Amino acid sequence: LNPYNLSRRELLIAGGGIAVTNLSIPALAVETTPDKLGKDLIFRTTDPRNGEPELSNLVKSWVTPTKHFYVRSHAPNPQIDVNKFSLTVEGKVRTPLTLTMNQLSQLPRHHLTATLTCAGNRRVEFNSEGKVGGVQWAAGPIGNAKWSGFALADVLKKAEILEEARHVWFEGLDEIQRTNVVIPFGGSIPIEKAMITGPIPGAVLADQMNEQPLSPDHGYPLRTIVPGYVGARSVKWLGKIVVSDKPSPNHYLAAAYKLVKKTDPIDWTESGPIYRYPINGAIATPDAGTVVPAGRLDISGYVLPTGLRDSRAQRIEISTDNGINWTVAKTTGQDSAFCWQLWNARVKVTSRTNSLIMRAFDSSGGFMPQRVPWNAKGYLQNSWYRLPITVS
Amino acid sequence: LNPYNLSRRELLIAGGGIAVTNLSIPALAVETTPDKLGKDLIFRTTDPRNGEPELSNLVKSWVTPTKHFYVRSHAPNPQIDVNKFSLTVEGKVRTPLTLTMNQLSQLPRHHLTATLTCAGNRRVEFNSEGKVGGVQWAAGPIGNAKWSGFALADVLKKAEILEEARHVWFEGLDEIQRTNVVIPFGGSIPIEKAMITGPIPGAVLADQMNEQPLSPDHGYPLRTIVPGYVGARSVKWLGKIVVSDKPSPNHYLAAAYKLVKKTDPIDWTESGPIYRYPINGAIATPDAGTVVPAGRLDISGYVLPTGLRDSRAQRIEISTDNGINWTVAKTTGQDSAFCWQLWNARVKVTSRTNSLIMRAFDSSGGFMPQRVPWNAKGYLQNSWYRLPITVS
Repeated sequence: LNPYNLSRRELLIAGGGIAVTNLSIPALAVETTPDKLGKDLIFRTTDPRNGEPELSNLVKSWVTPTKHFYVRSHAPNPQIDVNKFSLTVEGKVRTPLTLTMNQLSQLPRHHLTATLTCAGNRRVEFNSEGKVGGVQWAAGPIGNAKWSGFALADVLKKAEILEEARHVWFEGLDEIQRTNVVIPFGGSIPIEKAMITGPIPGAVLADQMNEQPLSPDHGYPLRTIVPGYVGARSVKWLGKIVVSDKPSPNHYLAAAYKLVKKTDPIDWTESGPIYRYPINGAIATPDAGTVVPAGRLDISGYVLPTGLRDSRAQRIEISTDNGINWTVAKTTGQDSAFCWQLWNARVKVTSRTNSLIMRAFDSSGGFMPQRVPWNAKGYLQNSWYRLPITVS
Repeated sequence: LNPYNLSRRELLIAGGGIAVTNLSIPALAVETTPDKLGKDLIFRTTDPRNGEPELSNLVKSWVTPTKHFYVRSHAPNPQIDVNKFSLTVEGKVRTPLTLTMNQLSQLPRHHLTATLTCAGNRRVEFNSEGKVGGVQWAAGPIGNAKWSGFALADVLKKAEILEEARHVWFEGLDEIQRTNVVIPFGGSIPIEKAMITGPIPGAVLADQMNEQPLSPDHGYPLRTIVPGYVGARSVKWLGKIVVSDKPSPNHYLAAAYKLVKKTDPIDWTESGPIYRYPINGAIATPDAGTVVPAGRLDISGYVLPTGLRDSRAQRIEISTDNGINWTVAKTTGQDSAFCWQLWNARVKVTSRTNSLIMRAFDSSGGFMPQRVPWNAKGYLQNSWYRLPITVS
């Protein structure tokens, strides 16, 4: 039994009065961890827990409910006693810190809505060209949530970073069993990103998701949120921050989450870590393989522009004739930095239509290409999204 | 006057008896530096010297004559007295070395043919979307030459690298004036690449190009050749090698030669250095804008597969109708690792043809995409090559 399948009330008890400030809606009686029947999320693996929502559930709202927010873990959820919890900050700093949740809560609180996306989103689409390893994700490991917490920059200022600081490492409290060792999930971001204070901080140490304390699946009691970067940089169950002159040597920064042809030492070192995500999108409804009558068809989906503060989705296009003609879709979501857009379109399908294709462009020059090069780990699949359908 | 516009005989005199061993053809009387009238190379800048050949000259032979081999420099050619020249090897090594050319010549000599290409090849094609900085290269900064010299791995073994060695830095003897400082051109490669001994060494310290001593424009008396990597890693006028646990901090590795949207600190650090080159190609004949009669047309060009030892050009295709139909081209060059292929094709053009398009695929999954994302420095333009023509 997962020790964290607790109700919110139980969570608060277990949390021993963790300071949840600025909650703008009343506490909900229903806990937001994924249901055991797997209706809220489709679990690709259960140990560790890796689940994504049905796409039709995913696009029901611009802010993704926590129960439909994908879960990506590399180890069992750690059991953290928040009374004993503290965050350590060390490395190239003048003043190393050990901060309890209450001490963190003294810092100014920031609220932001930001989309997280797994670098392996749409990974399965690579398999037609050559099987790729890792969790076999469809287009569901993406979600847009309200986050609340403290600016990493404020913590680093308190710690007084030294001049040689170049990267900020994050280390989780999870325990990942690799061949001969147990390691935490970890990663790092460049110091320039880490030091952005606002209006949207470069990184937030979040204790709340969708106006609730983080659920165990999402990093309770504390995680990083790095807007614009692939989800792997938003380290869950954050326990340690190290300021360094080098990128993190943690496996998930130094080796995994890279675009490589093979997973050999040369390929690893020739490739830089993935930080920012490129534009991506998908058709969410109807379901793949749906049989529809010829004529008008309403479809919907999501698009996430390049992970840059000023990047916005600019043109979302649908083709029913294999890329010859394109219909422009309309956005329905909110226009907000580092957030996805939802869209819908009405297209005409004929007996010759065998698939719908979606592509998009953004204001920073990003676009979904017709095809992307295969890579061994199946990352950053953002080519034209093809949905097979049958027209009766 | 460039002090290195010397004949080969003069070079030998200036070189004071530099050990040019294993020359398999007699010394030529004609010096191979680019002619002063600019017929052999089109100089985009002359101070420093940056020239590329006319494409029709480029594809006349599989091995590019030195006079038609592109020149990419960041500073005036340094004046190096080979008698006083020595290469230093330092950093994470047990035995730092200072090697004269004669001492280097004691090492086993390696011969290889390899293509070098500037990361900025075809840069001008980005300008239609947004002006990019740097030398305004067309499709000429690429060439295939015979190189001869010593395996970097043999030098590093002599120096006995320490366990913490991760990257090998190269530093040139050129002096590049930047805003407030003078720096050498430099860069680094991962240790795994550097330690490859054969059959094709991961990197060669070359003193010969096309069976002649290096010309001043190409790095006399010593340069690195790193097969499979963009030209910038093949540092000319090599004076120093540093073994390190970090990539080189030299501007041309740490900042320039990266794919960035803007040249600001976040973009620089978010992007890894470019090492390996992706597949690329171009139509070399006829010239752009040529008026040709309707009917059959013979065209030719080059293709360079992804910079991996086993990657080979697999399919080279030409379209005369804007990408609807494709004709397969035939390769005419030699099939050799890390080398380009030349190709030709006979296509049919009609009064509706306004351009020829070339694309290619390679055996490692590389392909020339229809379009590539714009980047501020204009690197790695390898989209479909479009040649405008007029059919009379």
